[in-house]
Amino acid sequence: MAYFRKHYHAPGTAPGTLVSAPESPLPLSIELLDYTGERVEELALRSAEDCKPFLDRASKTWIQVNGPVDPQTLRNLGELFDLHDLALEDVLNAGQRPKVDLYDDQMFITTALPVYHEGRLETTQISLFVGENYLIGFCPLATDPFEPIRKRMRQPNNRRFVTREIDYLLYALLDLIIDEGFPVLEQFGDELESLEAELLERPDQETLGAIHRLKRELLIMRRMLWPQREMINSLMRIEDHLVRPDTLVYLRDCHDHTVQIMELLESFRDMATGMLDIYLSSVSNRTNETMRVLTIIATIFIPLTFIVGVYGMNFGNPDNPWAMPELRWTYGYPMVWVLMIGVTAGLVWFFRRRHWL
Amino acid sequence: MAYFRKHYHAPGTAPGTLVSAPESPLPLSIELLDYTGERVEELALRSAEDCKPFLDRASKTWIQVNGPVDPQTLRNLGELFDLHDLALEDVLNAGQRPKVDLYDDQMFITTALPVYHEGRLETTQISLFVGENYLIGFCPLATDPFEPIRKRMRQPNNRRFVTREIDYLLYALLDLIIDEGFPVLEQFGDELESLEAELLERPDQETLGAIHRLKRELLIMRRMLWPQREMINSLMRIEDHLVRPDTLVYLRDCHDHTVQIMELLESFRDMATGMLDIYLSSVSNRTNETMRVLTIIATIFIPLTFIVGVYGMNFGNPDNPWAMPELRWTYGYPMVWVLMIGVTAGLVWFFRRRHWL
Amino acid sequence: MAYFRKHYHAPGTAPGTLVSAPESPLPLSIELLDYTGERVEELALRSAEDCKPFLDRASKTWIQVNGPVDPQTLRNLGELFDLHDLALEDVLNAGQRPKVDLYDDQMFITTALPVYHEGRLETTQISLFVGENYLIGFCPLATDPFEPIRKRMRQPNNRRFVTREIDYLLYALLDLIIDEGFPVLEQFGDELESLEAELLERPDQETLGAIHRLKRELLIMRRMLWPQREMINSLMRIEDHLVRPDTLVYLRDCHDHTVQIMELLESFRDMATGMLDIYLSSVSNRTNETMRVLTIIATIFIPLTFIVGVYGMNFGNPDNPWAMPELRWTYGYPMVWVLMIGVTAGLVWFFRRRHWL
Amino acid sequence: MAYFRKHYHAPGTAPGTLVSAPESPLPLSIELLDYTGERVEELALRSAEDCKPFLDRASKTWIQVNGPVDPQTLRNLGELFDLHDLALEDVLNAGQRPKVDLYDDQMFITTALPVYHEGRLETTQISLFVGENYLIGFCPLATDPFEPIRKRMRQPNNRRFVTREIDYLLYALLDLIIDEGFPVLEQFGDELESLEAELLERPDQETLGAIHRLKRELLIMRRMLWPQREMINSLMRIEDHLVRPDTLVYLRDCHDHTVQIMELLESFRDMATGMLDIYLSSVSNRTNETMRVLTIIATIFIPLTFIVGVYGMNFGNPDNPWAMPELRWTYGYPMVWVLMIGVTAGLVWFFRRRHWL
Amino acid sequence: MAYFRKHYHAPGTAPGTLVSAPESPLPLSIELLDYTGERVEELALRSAEDCKPFLDRASKTWIQVNGPVDPQTLRNLGELFDLHDLALEDVLNAGQRPKVDLYDDQMFITTALPVYHEGRLETTQISLFVGENYLIGFCPLATDPFEPIRKRMRQPNNRRFVTREIDYLLYALLDLIIDEGFPVLEQFGDELESLEAELLERPDQETLGAIHRLKRELLIMRRMLWPQREMINSLMRIEDHLVRPDTLVYLRDCHDHTVQIMELLESFRDMATGMLDIYLSSVSNRTNETMRVLTIIATIFIPLTFIVGVYGMNFGNPDNPWAMPELRWTYGYPMVWVLMIGVTAGLVWFFRRRHWL
Repeated sequence: MAYFRKHYHAPGTAPGTLVSAPESPLPLSIELLDYTGERVEELALRSAEDCKPFLDRASKTWIQVNGPVDPQTLRNLGELFDLHDLALEDVLNAGQRPKVDLYDDQMFITTALPVYHEGRLETTQISLFVGENYLIGFCPLATDPFEPIRKRMRQPNNRRFVTREIDYLLYALLDLIIDEGFPVLEQFGDELESLEAELLERPDQETLGAIHRLKRELLIMRRMLWPQREMINSLMRIEDHLVRPDTLVYLRDCHDHTVQIMELLESFRDMATGMLDIYLSSVSNRTNETMRVLTIIATIFIPLTFIVGVYGMNFGNPDNPWAMPELRWTYGYPMVWVLMIGVTAGLVWFFRRRHWL
Repeated sequence: MAYFRKHYHAPGTAPGTLVSAPESPLPLSIELLDYTGERVEELALRSAEDCKPFLDRASKTWIQVNGPVDPQTLRNLGELFDLHDLALEDVLNAGQRPKVDLYDDQMFITTALPVYHEGRLETTQISLFVGENYLIGFCPLATDPFEPIRKRMRQPNNRRFVTREIDYLLYALLDLIIDEGFPVLEQFGDELESLEAELLERPDQETLGAIHRLKRELLIMRRMLWPQREMINSLMRIEDHLVRPDTLVYLRDCHDHTVQIMELLESFRDMATGMLDIYLSSVSNRTNETMRVLTIIATIFIPLTFIVGVYGMNFGNPDNPWAMPELRWTYGYPMVWVLMIGVTAGLVWFFRRRHWL
Repeated sequence: MAYFRKHYHAPGTAPGTLVSAPESPLPLSIELLDYTGERVEELALRSAEDCKPFLDRASKTWIQVNGPVDPQTLRNLGELFDLHDLALEDVLNAGQRPKVDLYDDQMFITTALPVYHEGRLETTQISLFVGENYLIGFCPLATDPFEPIRKRMRQPNNRRFVTREIDYLLYALLDLIIDEGFPVLEQFGDELESLEAELLERPDQETLGAIHRLKRELLIMRRMLWPQREMINSLMRIEDHLVRPDTLVYLRDCHDHTVQIMELLESFRDMATGMLDIYLSSVSNRTNETMRVLTIIATIFIPLTFIVGVYGMNFGNPDNPWAMPELRWTYGYPMVWVLMIGVTAGLVWFFRRRHWL
Repeated sequence: MAYFRKHYHAPGTAPGTLVSAPESPLPLSIELLDYTGERVEELALRSAEDCKPFLDRASKTWIQVNGPVDPQTLRNLGELFDLHDLALEDVLNAGQRPKVDLYDDQMFITTALPVYHEGRLETTQISLFVGENYLIGFCPLATDPFEPIRKRMRQPNNRRFVTREIDYLLYALLDLIIDEGFPVLEQFGDELESLEAELLERPDQETLGAIHRLKRELLIMRRMLWPQREMINSLMRIEDHLVRPDTLVYLRDCHDHTVQIMELLESFRDMATGMLDIYLSSVSNRTNETMRVLTIIATIFIPLTFIVGVYGMNFGNPDNPWAMPELRWTYGYPMVWVLMIGVTAGLVWFFRRRHWL
Repeated sequence: MAYFRKHYHAPGTAPGTLVSAPESPLPLSIELLDYTGERVEELALRSAEDCKPFLDRASKTWIQVNGPVDPQTLRNLGELFDLHDLALEDVLNAGQRPKVDLYDDQMFITTALPVYHEGRLETTQISLFVGENYLIGFCPLATDPFEPIRKRMRQPNNRRFVTREIDYLLYALLDLIIDEGFPVLEQFGDELESLEAELLERPDQETLGAIHRLKRELLIMRRMLWPQREMINSLMRIEDHLVRPDTLVYLRDCHDHTVQIMELLESFRDMATGMLDIYLSSVSNRTNETMRVLTIIATIFIPLTFIVGVYGMNFGNPDNPWAMPELRWTYGYPMVWVLMIGVTAGLVWFFRRRHWL
């Protein structure tokens, strides 16, 4: 996972330049869903031009482009729906920060879909163009992340959805994207808990790496969420016919979710930072304990070794009364043991007083 | 205690979906209290429909639902009182952040009741719907947390309460919920004090765990309090007939309490963070002291052991004048002791100069 | 000194409940000072009712209640001056955060008087009611903290004070309370300096405790000062006849002092936090130095001890040419010394290169 | 790389004083590009006066001064275009913070071009004067950083650029300057990644230096970016005919890029700060491990050495039954080995229990 | 250098009380400079009254009081120019935070002049009263800090200065005061660089003290600069005839400098804080390295010493086949060496694998 994951053109490139992304093995699919309160029609398009027949109808049209879109398709869609060059450039240059740009009769929204897979957080840029009665979505993944929405729209007894205007569809998509944050956070929460348990029991270098990685992912997630909240906020404040008053209560709910996710995230970040301190303290603690064991052993045996060393000296000339007379005493050997046991007892008493034993 | 404690639906679920909470052994009780300035009437309802007769009366009605509410009861109440789908969803999905949502002729308030029991902080979501002359409260606990309010309303000489409008009841409930923060903080304060005493005396790995746990609970409490202050603030600024001007002075008092609790909490958090530093410093300090003892013992005895080792060498060939003549000197042995005592004295002087002894 | 020092009623208690503070041996005194531009009259009241005669006069009246006020006296004063229940409750429940509450024709102000005595910071809640021509002050201490003000008012040549309205008296009291912060900060500053000196010389576990205690007191002081600044700010912005325009310039001066005290406090907090880092670094430094001494001694003597150990082995069978022939060489013993001196020189050179010696 | 890199005059110098920069070996070049929708004319000027003929034309004129500009040239340009003294002073005194100053019919913009070369971040001050139909740029480098823009203007099929007003040229230059941040950040990202890998494997003193250097460069970059964002913001909010409404959408794109760069930078800073903690933890961890090895070895061998020391004592007088009878036992030697193996086994069991082995 | 350096009166002192500063050996000088567009007249006054003749002239008058001003002189000036009591008190009570107070037809400005001398930062309070056509400055230093301004005013060819109104003089003084921050910051920058070099090479306890001192001075400087920026900001926003529109562009330049100084300062503070972390890491690193050396030496020699100890045991009874038969083997001694070399090789291999050698 790289730190810098933004696609960008060489500085000085003309704005609106569309450069093909690196070759990708993923297929491109263009799904069209045309609906009114009465009917829902689904169609897989072969090229951008195929959506022309739907352009002038009064029905609402949702075009979802999944997979790596090529500049040509983008340019065609741009001409058909009069999309702004700068916006089209942003669709191709992945790694945008979530935002809403308001053009004359159109909104351009970029947002990020978080996915936690194989123990790693990944984010995918979703781009949405919203007009009076159409919504064009772009997602670089092979599978459509919005399948649950499609399912709800198809349900014959759920007319409430399809009778509403296109902004309700926009809400439904954004709501899904934001709510994908909950399972990710749940994963983070689980990881934090298992790290915490590890931390207070047996922390090692790997725990450190795991905390670092977690902090990094929380940081990435946070970098994505702050502008997302701002984006929902802008949508709610936009004084434009594209967002109707009766959708506002739903967007408010969306906003609540973003704020909730962000607050959880912030407290996770706080906990992860606190964990590093705990880790450091734990290691210091263990070093201290190791030191204590060493000190006890060394402090007891070093003086003893000195004592036995004394009587290992070869001064034992039996004719010299000054030369280690102890060696010649009858109880010399037992007395040395008494001395050594005394020294040990004194040291144990000393350690007890210091609460080391 | 899990880090992530929010109930949520799978992303893409339709808004307002009511899903039954996991089976709970707690009983469900619906208490109705109908009052005017003249009389207070209490009733235990069997089902949501039983409150119908009270709907059109001019009296004020307080319906309190305690225990795990089922989707059906919720839906019935929703129909009777025209409650919004999104709000009903929030009642079931525990772990909401405190907020106030304003609907046409109704307010929906969620808040959290903090309880400190068995040495752990727990928070319970309280949901309140407030209309012109009714208040519906939801609390997932088995016992009614609002019994003290009920008692005050029943008192025959306390007419001041029951003559006021429904917003005063709302204030009384919120005031109780907020004031529950004080005993919790008092507990935190006591814990901080005992941790502090432990810290400066004999900190160990358990102190570390306790500080970590405390920080975590302070974080949870804080995550709950910030939006609660905001919520009270919104209530005070709402330009709606549901909150009457003469209740504002009481809400201001409520607000003061929230701010006070929050400031205490923030300073507790500061102290807890500071404690980690103190812990780390304490451990370093102890390591240093352990090291000093080891160093003193080792530094004194290692040279001595070397000296006695020298005279333990088997060079003592009496015919070789170069082979350790000291062994054959009359005062050889005492001179070794003089040497060793001299070395020890020198080292003790060295340690004194370094303030190690 | 407890962390949690707020008096509060059990959650759910009716607002405005007055509960007597715990029995206190301090006496209660009620001092009345009635003044106009022409005369200053002082009176010690026996009960709250005694101030009745002054109520309808045009003169300005200052009633100062010192010591532990009982609920009855408070209730009497409340009735005489029409004081709000919630405000009276706040007078008794010590530990309020400084604030100004505006009632119809009255202001209620709580603030905190900091005192640094016996090496500890203590704060006392001062409550003030200000009306058109009266000011009622409450201070739980036995001695009147406002004696210097009284002195200034009594001075016959200082007519400027007594000719002004009651808001100037309010300013004088607040100014005194705020300025009491300066000697406290001076104490903090002195303590910081002595801690700093200690820190860079011989920090020990007690220095750590002292830094921690200082941080805690700075935190308490800060918790008091922030709302105090806000309070002065509100007073300056209040659009009410109670604060006259010509008093504003004096309140601005007050505000300047609060800001100055707060900025000093913040930088003291910064320095105290920095000191913990210095402490930690100092301890690490000392551990490192201790380690270096140990390592030098051990690294020099351990190899030497090994060498002498070699020649202490009992392989000296004179008939076996392979069994330690060195023992039988004429210059064996001096050569061992040469070897040992060589090893020592090598190690000293090694330590010099590492800048350890 | 110096910390303080601002050129300034001695305090008290008159505003607008132009002092020649230190002698520089770089050549000075003045490039003029005059354009209308129909034609693009390029010219290398010998002196400032040469641009006079273009002053009154309706065409748009871009004068780019590269290299170390001398006070005289600056003064000449100042007279020709009526540039403000304070602005001219800022052109010479490098190290300005990015800003936009609005004069009567002119804007003065300073900004900073970041370059990452030879592993070091360098920033160059770019100054721009923008009038109704002219733009004067200053860049102290020898090579023109705006060559890509020049190329785009020259392209015969890119009439869109040259038909636009001078504010579009301004946008193009600013866009290039801001986008130069992306390759720099990419470099930072790469460095962070390699540091991270190093950190979790084998951190040493050099890693520390590298993290420190990186943090310092991120700080420098940040000090440059904050005011740059502000500057773009001012440009967008300026109510002046110099910035036309149809350029706003491009400036918004510019602004988005600045915000994105800044957010990346902030998260890089966060990661770099976190890395220091990881470093510290890693080192502590390694110290702990080193200690463990030492403790294990010492704790096992010190008691063994003591035991063998005991039997090295010269108490072996065969006639004294108290003098080490073990030496005379037939199985004395094997029993010592059994004892030593037993002690070792016990210690190994002890270490196992402590998870040290 | 004391932490608390504010002069204050005992709490409760009447506002506007002027108390003489402690006796100072510095002389007091009052310099008057009267100027119009045509002439500049300079005069050294003996007392405050001497400036009376200039009061009613249309010319602009600058009175500069250098040295320790006595209360009487201050009171005289106060009466002559109608200066407010609170402002006069602030002139004497040094240690004010920079501010601008607006009185009826007068401004009172306090600011701080930073000086870095003998390796220490010192700040001096400068007080300025500005009226319609006079400016009175107070500086407690013996030498006039504004000599460069005086020089510029005296220059006969610099009529631009003296033809402007008094607010331009104010700007010139403020500009000088603010620009004095640049050389101070340059000093800080140099110190940071030398500390940084020291830090990565051989940090010791003195480096720690130096970092701490630097942080403290940066804190003092910052406490001075924040309100200074605010003060310039107020001056620019004041809607008063005392600041004329054509001076605003100069004040904006001043403001730019303050912001630039502050940003540099903040990044210096960041670097200084980072340095403490580096210091801690460096010390840990060195401790670790010391430990490694000790561990290598000890781990190699402790087992060897044990081995030689074994053969120092006195079990060598030649008649007992169980008593150390090795001693009697022909190749016993060489075999012991082989064993010891083998053990050493094994340990070296172990250390290599752990990258300790």
